[in-house]
Amino acid sequence: MDAETRDEILEATNRALCEHGYAGLTVQRIADESSVTSAAIHYHFDTKEELLNAFLDDLIERFESNLSCEESDPRKRLDAVLDAVFSPKEPESDGFPVAIMELKAQAPYHELFRERFLDFDGLMREVVADIVRDGVEAGHFDETDPGEIARLITTMSNGAHARAVALDEHPAETRRVVEDALELHLDWTPSEGADR
Amino acid sequence: MDAETRDEILEATNRALCEHGYAGLTVQRIADESSVTSAAIHYHFDTKEELLNAFLDDLIERFESNLSCEESDPRKRLDAVLDAVFSPKEPESDGFPVAIMELKAQAPYHELFRERFLDFDGLMREVVADIVRDGVEAGHFDETDPGEIARLITTMSNGAHARAVALDEHPAETRRVVEDALELHLDWTPSEGADR
Repeated sequence: MDAETRDEILEATNRALCEHGYAGLTVQRIADESSVTSAAIHYHFDTKEELLNAFLDDLIERFESNLSCEESDPRKRLDAVLDAVFSPKEPESDGFPVAIMELKAQAPYHELFRERFLDFDGLMREVVADIVRDGVEAGHFDETDPGEIARLITTMSNGAHARAVALDEHPAETRRVVEDALELHLDWTPSEGADR
Repeated sequence: MDAETRDEILEATNRALCEHGYAGLTVQRIADESSVTSAAIHYHFDTKEELLNAFLDDLIERFESNLSCEESDPRKRLDAVLDAVFSPKEPESDGFPVAIMELKAQAPYHELFRERFLDFDGLMREVVADIVRDGVEAGHFDETDPGEIARLITTMSNGAHARAVALDEHPAETRRVVEDALELHLDWTPSEGADR
């Protein structure tokens, strides 16, 4: 399958998932959202699980490329992670966080989904731990366990996601708490000593 | 409806929900798990939403009574909250955290579910904030914002729940990070100065 067709199918999957939810997601509805026929979608993806696996894989890649920047200052990089996680720039469709929540609830029944969520978690924790390690080494942050800071930010982000869906709470509420905890752990406050 | 019938219906709801998930939950399946007929269940609860609302309400009450103890030492009370949230004593059915996750994903479509999750969140944050306030007053904890500690513990607990479902991770991983953060915020470590 060429990259363009794949992209079109995955973007249509995103729209159909946000609109109809996991239970209401059908190949026909994905086809309705794109110029690709349902026969062609079936041809490229044998099962709904495979299609959603590709969809999650694509999300992870986009998250990764969002975070890979030329910036070298660990303080600016940590700012960028907090922005990406707690203050997403592009307003997501309301249905998107709900759809991801539904896929998480499906992870115990779909090994491929679980693997993708583990990939995403591993990536996010690695990115944060690298930043903390670099910041400690450069003397910007207090000595601390980088893996633990990674776990704190990632778990708070998981919590913020669940709260957005279940309580309709803005992730900024969580960001404030994370920033105060980081101040204690790292002796660092956002944008401190870094031009924004 | 007498309390016994109500309890029996709600316990059967719990079992049916853990076994069949939200999408597979039917009144017939609840009846199959109990000695109450499906006609009687329909009589007491007009809709599946009302039934699940009562189920969530019951969970909140049980959580509340678990935490209300005669204990007055804020340090022991904080220990008890961490135990209740991150190290549940009774091994839950594997399906239980998944079912709660599914209900959270339904909250945007069911105002009653959202209200119950907001109730639960408000209760948990109030319990933690009270403990922190008492502990600061008694000189056991460093001066801090009780509402913020409440938010930290509650959001980490939401994150631990999502991680248990999506990643199959034990909540103890999150507890360790919470305890280290509490040490920095409160200058308190679990069981410190408290007999267990």
